[in-house]
Amino acid sequence: MSKPKIAISVGDLNGVGIEIALKAHKEISELCTPIYCINKYMLSQAAKLLHVDLPDDLEVSFVDGDFDIKPGEISVPSGRYSFESFMHGVILCQREEADALVTMPIHKEAWMESGLKFKGHTDALRQYFKKDAIMMLGCEKMFVALYTEHIPLKDVAHEIQYKKLKQFFLDLNESIPKEQIAVLGLNPHAGDNGVLGNEELRITKAIKSANLQIGFERFVGPLVPDVAFTPHNREKFKYFAAMYHDQGLTPLKALYFDESVNISLNLPIIRTSVDHGTAFDIAYKGEANTLSYINAIKSAIGFIA
Amino acid sequence: MSKPKIAISVGDLNGVGIEIALKAHKEISELCTPIYCINKYMLSQAAKLLHVDLPDDLEVSFVDGDFDIKPGEISVPSGRYSFESFMHGVILCQREEADALVTMPIHKEAWMESGLKFKGHTDALRQYFKKDAIMMLGCEKMFVALYTEHIPLKDVAHEIQYKKLKQFFLDLNESIPKEQIAVLGLNPHAGDNGVLGNEELRITKAIKSANLQIGFERFVGPLVPDVAFTPHNREKFKYFAAMYHDQGLTPLKALYFDESVNISLNLPIIRTSVDHGTAFDIAYKGEANTLSYINAIKSAIGFIA
Repeated sequence: MSKPKIAISVGDLNGVGIEIALKAHKEISELCTPIYCINKYMLSQAAKLLHVDLPDDLEVSFVDGDFDIKPGEISVPSGRYSFESFMHGVILCQREEADALVTMPIHKEAWMESGLKFKGHTDALRQYFKKDAIMMLGCEKMFVALYTEHIPLKDVAHEIQYKKLKQFFLDLNESIPKEQIAVLGLNPHAGDNGVLGNEELRITKAIKSANLQIGFERFVGPLVPDVAFTPHNREKFKYFAAMYHDQGLTPLKALYFDESVNISLNLPIIRTSVDHGTAFDIAYKGEANTLSYINAIKSAIGFIA
Repeated sequence: MSKPKIAISVGDLNGVGIEIALKAHKEISELCTPIYCINKYMLSQAAKLLHVDLPDDLEVSFVDGDFDIKPGEISVPSGRYSFESFMHGVILCQREEADALVTMPIHKEAWMESGLKFKGHTDALRQYFKKDAIMMLGCEKMFVALYTEHIPLKDVAHEIQYKKLKQFFLDLNESIPKEQIAVLGLNPHAGDNGVLGNEELRITKAIKSANLQIGFERFVGPLVPDVAFTPHNREKFKYFAAMYHDQGLTPLKALYFDESVNISLNLPIIRTSVDHGTAFDIAYKGEANTLSYINAIKSAIGFIA
């Protein structure tokens, strides 16, 4: 079997993405054929700043652009280029010239200053494909899918609606391996029989209805949130569904910070990402850690199979 | 120096508390003089059910009561007795006949059925002393103080008020060792400069104002919640202030489930507690783990010094 082809979008070139990509090139080339969405001129510039030689076997898919890399700076051309590289990777996957896309981090303010209105990669994918992409983060040991993501905490409870939740469960069911998924409650002690909130009634109803439609007990819960991720439960479950951003990501990052990756589910293409930002403070200093990137590559390959 | 005297309230006698107390008696007697708030008749009954002999050196402070222990059952006399034992311990501390109180778990429904209106120990202490007790949980490696506790998630954002928060910080400042305390934001990415919520403005104002009054940078933050408990931050900080129950307790229990204890701060007495419930499912089966109890004893002694 030939190695899978993975499109790599380079992220904000003023950040750590390209450094990580070059550092890990040899290692990931044993697992896949990476196709870097960039051009040779920008690549040479980055290599020069990093004081490294470009490998001979590096395959590039041309993304037009020509500007000065300024390590650690928010800039309009760099923000714009990170978007072009990303969309180029998306299209390679759509055309089946790549089997999956792995994205390096972009800088949100650079996107904003470039006039791009998306909150990030996932939001852009959602609008491009007109599909409710599901954001899932994690590593081999534990994955957390998010029901709500980048909204203020005060708006979360209102989003706990039966129909939307059920659809989320059905979409999740289609997207991940067939094992049980633990669903978290919303309130302390999962509401303590209604004393501390009653959204758990709607969560329970959505779980039951989704399970009935799926035909087996695919979803379990709602679990009491503060004990959902104890060692006992992590042995029992690998996949969790969290009701809001910090409910899932705070324990995940407490346990597996360096290892985690970000996966977009429920889309026509496979896309994974490193679980960190542009790290402008250490850009081009040789300090960036490749673990999350290598895991993102491995996860992407896992989802192709 | 003589050993500190620790009052032990026995919790719901239908649960695991008394089993843990007897199992750990020898070990904790090396650290302190435990005074068990119970009577000999009830104690003998428990020992018989557990098939153990009572140690000779066991000191009891008499709490009246006489009923049949029914392992794993919610019962009115047991609920009522757990309250009497608890209040007896509180009074021993007030009279300075004990230096601290360590509480075994009570059963909330048994309290309710006994006509007791408190949500738990902390709530009862708050009403008894008419003081805003602060609930802190943790172990030697990491402690989390809670700004809000047992309220529905949807009500949390409304509680983020400048004056109340500042008073919480000032109370916390008086209650724990003099090192920096990391304060968490409320929203994903700590609000991302207002894009995902603006409660962080009030948190920041309260931090600044409290620090100014205290005279140094005692409180640091608001930290981005989902990266607050990464290894890097846990090296930097031992004490954290969380805005709501699950924000602090979910990562704490993911990391240190068996070791954690519960400490009531900002009260005239020192009180610590195990960080688990009555565990009715394993009561009187010899399976209960003593680690949290032993840590609760050690924490209490630490706070006496």
